[in-house]
Amino acid sequence: MSAVGFIGLGIMGSGMARNLFRAGHSLYVWNRTRSAAEAFAKELVNEQCGESKGYSSGNAQVHVADSPRSVAGACNVIYSMLSTPEAALSVHLDAERGTVQELGPQKMLIECSTLDVSTMERLSEAVHQRGALFLEAPVSGSKVPAQTGTLIFLCSGDRAAYDRVASSGLDVMGKASFFLGERCGAGTKMKIVVNMIMGSMMVALAEGASLAESCGLSTETLNEILGLGAMNSPLFSMKLPNMISSQYEAHFPLKHQQKDLRFAISLGDEMEQWLPLSAIANEVFKAAQASGFGDYDFSAVVEALRNKKRRPSN
Amino acid sequence: MSAVGFIGLGIMGSGMARNLFRAGHSLYVWNRTRSAAEAFAKELVNEQCGESKGYSSGNAQVHVADSPRSVAGACNVIYSMLSTPEAALSVHLDAERGTVQELGPQKMLIECSTLDVSTMERLSEAVHQRGALFLEAPVSGSKVPAQTGTLIFLCSGDRAAYDRVASSGLDVMGKASFFLGERCGAGTKMKIVVNMIMGSMMVALAEGASLAESCGLSTETLNEILGLGAMNSPLFSMKLPNMISSQYEAHFPLKHQQKDLRFAISLGDEMEQWLPLSAIANEVFKAAQASGFGDYDFSAVVEALRNKKRRPSN
Amino acid sequence: MSAVGFIGLGIMGSGMARNLFRAGHSLYVWNRTRSAAEAFAKELVNEQCGESKGYSSGNAQVHVADSPRSVAGACNVIYSMLSTPEAALSVHLDAERGTVQELGPQKMLIECSTLDVSTMERLSEAVHQRGALFLEAPVSGSKVPAQTGTLIFLCSGDRAAYDRVASSGLDVMGKASFFLGERCGAGTKMKIVVNMIMGSMMVALAEGASLAESCGLSTETLNEILGLGAMNSPLFSMKLPNMISSQYEAHFPLKHQQKDLRFAISLGDEMEQWLPLSAIANEVFKAAQASGFGDYDFSAVVEALRNKKRRPSN
Amino acid sequence: MSAVGFIGLGIMGSGMARNLFRAGHSLYVWNRTRSAAEAFAKELVNEQCGESKGYSSGNAQVHVADSPRSVAGACNVIYSMLSTPEAALSVHLDAERGTVQELGPQKMLIECSTLDVSTMERLSEAVHQRGALFLEAPVSGSKVPAQTGTLIFLCSGDRAAYDRVASSGLDVMGKASFFLGERCGAGTKMKIVVNMIMGSMMVALAEGASLAESCGLSTETLNEILGLGAMNSPLFSMKLPNMISSQYEAHFPLKHQQKDLRFAISLGDEMEQWLPLSAIANEVFKAAQASGFGDYDFSAVVEALRNKKRRPSN
Repeated sequence: MSAVGFIGLGIMGSGMARNLFRAGHSLYVWNRTRSAAEAFAKELVNEQCGESKGYSSGNAQVHVADSPRSVAGACNVIYSMLSTPEAALSVHLDAERGTVQELGPQKMLIECSTLDVSTMERLSEAVHQRGALFLEAPVSGSKVPAQTGTLIFLCSGDRAAYDRVASSGLDVMGKASFFLGERCGAGTKMKIVVNMIMGSMMVALAEGASLAESCGLSTETLNEILGLGAMNSPLFSMKLPNMISSQYEAHFPLKHQQKDLRFAISLGDEMEQWLPLSAIANEVFKAAQASGFGDYDFSAVVEALRNKKRRPSN
Repeated sequence: MSAVGFIGLGIMGSGMARNLFRAGHSLYVWNRTRSAAEAFAKELVNEQCGESKGYSSGNAQVHVADSPRSVAGACNVIYSMLSTPEAALSVHLDAERGTVQELGPQKMLIECSTLDVSTMERLSEAVHQRGALFLEAPVSGSKVPAQTGTLIFLCSGDRAAYDRVASSGLDVMGKASFFLGERCGAGTKMKIVVNMIMGSMMVALAEGASLAESCGLSTETLNEILGLGAMNSPLFSMKLPNMISSQYEAHFPLKHQQKDLRFAISLGDEMEQWLPLSAIANEVFKAAQASGFGDYDFSAVVEALRNKKRRPSN
Repeated sequence: MSAVGFIGLGIMGSGMARNLFRAGHSLYVWNRTRSAAEAFAKELVNEQCGESKGYSSGNAQVHVADSPRSVAGACNVIYSMLSTPEAALSVHLDAERGTVQELGPQKMLIECSTLDVSTMERLSEAVHQRGALFLEAPVSGSKVPAQTGTLIFLCSGDRAAYDRVASSGLDVMGKASFFLGERCGAGTKMKIVVNMIMGSMMVALAEGASLAESCGLSTETLNEILGLGAMNSPLFSMKLPNMISSQYEAHFPLKHQQKDLRFAISLGDEMEQWLPLSAIANEVFKAAQASGFGDYDFSAVVEALRNKKRRPSN
Repeated sequence: MSAVGFIGLGIMGSGMARNLFRAGHSLYVWNRTRSAAEAFAKELVNEQCGESKGYSSGNAQVHVADSPRSVAGACNVIYSMLSTPEAALSVHLDAERGTVQELGPQKMLIECSTLDVSTMERLSEAVHQRGALFLEAPVSGSKVPAQTGTLIFLCSGDRAAYDRVASSGLDVMGKASFFLGERCGAGTKMKIVVNMIMGSMMVALAEGASLAESCGLSTETLNEILGLGAMNSPLFSMKLPNMISSQYEAHFPLKHQQKDLRFAISLGDEMEQWLPLSAIANEVFKAAQASGFGDYDFSAVVEALRNKKRRPSN
């Protein structure tokens, strides 16, 4: 298998790149903090040398590149997974070190970050000007699905790029992928819709937990009841225990959920779609953020609602 | 098995009473509209005579009573399933025909209706004054779980009553039952909490569907994506198709969901628990109700949010 | 002038009754705490004896009655100003000591309290059964207008009662009065509408002040700007300084504003009128109440919104 | 008096420029649609020739310029009043025809448009690079205050520019001006705060009117009551009659109010200031916009709330 590039080795990216490696892809990786990229590379090699886990990375290799540009120079398929529009613009469009400097026919950029639509459009245009292909491929799923290869890819852009990676990359990082059309922005918009629903669900659960507490009802029993009924979902069964124990190890940081809701409200604005519930969910997340919970798991939103402002214990 | 009483044979009550009968309980039933009670009785007898379905109703019998009072006279265990506080007060406390006129030691009233807490307290007090037992046992679950015996009972009140019916009645009508304490109101409050979460979830889903539509995204694909991820729940997979097809056959009428949210907001008021998301969900349901969707399934709330006011086709 | 009765000498009632006295009406007063009624009577007499203030109370007298019933026995016109439905029901309907025991033809009850509609209806019915007249007359205005005789009366009920007191009582307690029809509840509903608007305005102002603070803008300057433009209102010019100084001496307690919003939401529910903004205003007041500001002035709602939870200094 | 430049002769700009002319300033004007500028110039000259109105324009002259650039070439003080960030960027920064091409020491740009902060920053930077002065001066007030010279200017930026125009320009266009500091963005943020409060007030009034209607209460009487109490404001007394008559001639278009609320929500986001009421006001304006009221006066927001979807009659 030919080497692929991977840019951005944070919570999400490191899990995703590891799954590519374990499936036999040699990697050219780059990370803003170089030491993290080197630690990542060492870890993969160690895992490869051991035998216990039974991964089939074979003789795949991992190289730490000096710049996004050199990743693009060395590979035909480049994935990136970054946390902000600013980071994505810098990594790809920088006149000295950006990936587009080395993109051209035969190459393709697979952008897995969740960005706003206009940033996606700027990237798409720049990639196309070099004659390369662009696929917008934001993911649904957080830390654990990234590690276990069970993400869901919501793709749009160049069909040829999708056809190339759907069964030679997305398949090992995710359990499903959707091609939502050639129109730039479709993947991002679907991602925003999905995460908007998730944000409101989390606040709905938090209000339920808070009201139960206020009434002196057992939230453990509430958890059992929810688990038996029509509302039973992995989200609720994972997150209500967080609220009960006030332990909020970040699988999906609250500030990112708030950012996605902000994108949703803006998208609704553009589409003349009013979203009263989501607008309030957004504000409750803001209140939680203003109280210092931005870096906690997004289930910490309950702390903005609880009658007695108990602080989490982690 | 001794005969039990069942008062109220609506969408919920008829399914529940049928399951008691199929499990071998003889029934004394009463319904405000007597003809419905007689049709129900005839249907049970016909089913019993046939052999195809394999129910073990054995030699159980069903009697249509003249009044709630005569149901209470004939049985030691009386269930009731009514739709409003006014109906419940009339059925139980009426000086001529109410159940309490015949209640006494050895008898127990199992109130399965969702009522407000103060009505439950009035009933509890009246039953106790007669020396009988009272169990508040509202259910989570709608039409189909009532039919299939998979309701969830949220009980509080007299422990002895719970112990008596948990394995000789609740078990054939439901898949689980919880005893939430002796304090009157606990079952009702838990029910309100659960349905409050459900109401907000439904509006969250409706906003997601509306935004997807406004963006020209496929709501069928949204349904698939939700089904694969952390938000996957029976509620979403049942109700999003309703929204997509604008078909809203009422399993849980929108006006009842709105009533439960109203109870939740009042309960929050009493407990000094603020509930901004649920308050907005309540208002969106009100908007849908004002547009004529009160008797449709509660998934019709999407019609209050959609950009183009498409009317449902059923 | 013939003597009039006045029941309830709290913040509002004491100001109102004093204005009746100063206009020359002899009073029969009753208050739940008798000592407050006696102190009030003494104060009026002292004022009458002095000459500096130039009031024309003439030879009016003030009597402290033993019960609401004896007030009704001594006077043809009885005003009452109480703070809750429970208080009103007890004062008027109590079988031993209630006013209705002495009401009859030629007598009239002028109920100035803000109550819910169903309580007004119960009072109206009981008064009519005695052959007396009933006027529902809730007021717009708080402490200072009560003292200065500049309240606004929102009346409905018996036209004859209105015609009798409009120019011989309401005129000295208020600067305007409206007769909104014979239908019981009209006055109360108008009061609820007015106070609902006020509640949302206060939260609007509080959010503006909070955002200005968060941006490092001067709230004193904001106050000046608002005073020059289309939004200039006595409410804003009185209350923004409270927010700036975090001084919340209660002219209208926050918990009463929240109660009025609760009534408004219920009224909207009954009328199928959705009220999304007011519903959120209600929840923000609840949040302020849960943080301990229920007895402060309702302008303290800003404390639930401020980024840094500064506590008021009074 | 030396000639001043004025760019943008829409609803606001035409009133403002006319007041400068009437005060004796010769004008160089530019408008995107040249014919409107020529009509405006002709109107001023006609007015000057007549004698009936008694304005003291003296021998002031008005010139229609070919481009923003030539306005800047001919004058030292240039005002602009445009409706969008895009228009402002084009007018000032265009490489061929933009004002900055002619700006330099001794010149100053007074930007009266309401723009977002980042656009103001780009303009400020570009002006400073040419050695000229920049004043951000958004206004509070709409059509009528622009005509009558009673706007309120909310200024920030170069103090020297403020000192120059405060008493030789702003004074004839407005009744007050505030200098809020040298920091770029302060004027814009204050404007956003003020208009955010206004947006919520309008929705508060609309909900009150809708609830009154739903209850069968007279909205004319509501108007009288509001006019007598603490909530009395020019805004309410101007706009409630609009709602009553369903006549919405645009003094401030609904879509602009919604845009300002969107800016406010974004600003709150940036400042970690949560704004639940304003967020809902924003969504209600969006709903009104989606129903086709974007170009009506912002008081038309009531149409999104009314129980019966009456369409306005103008």
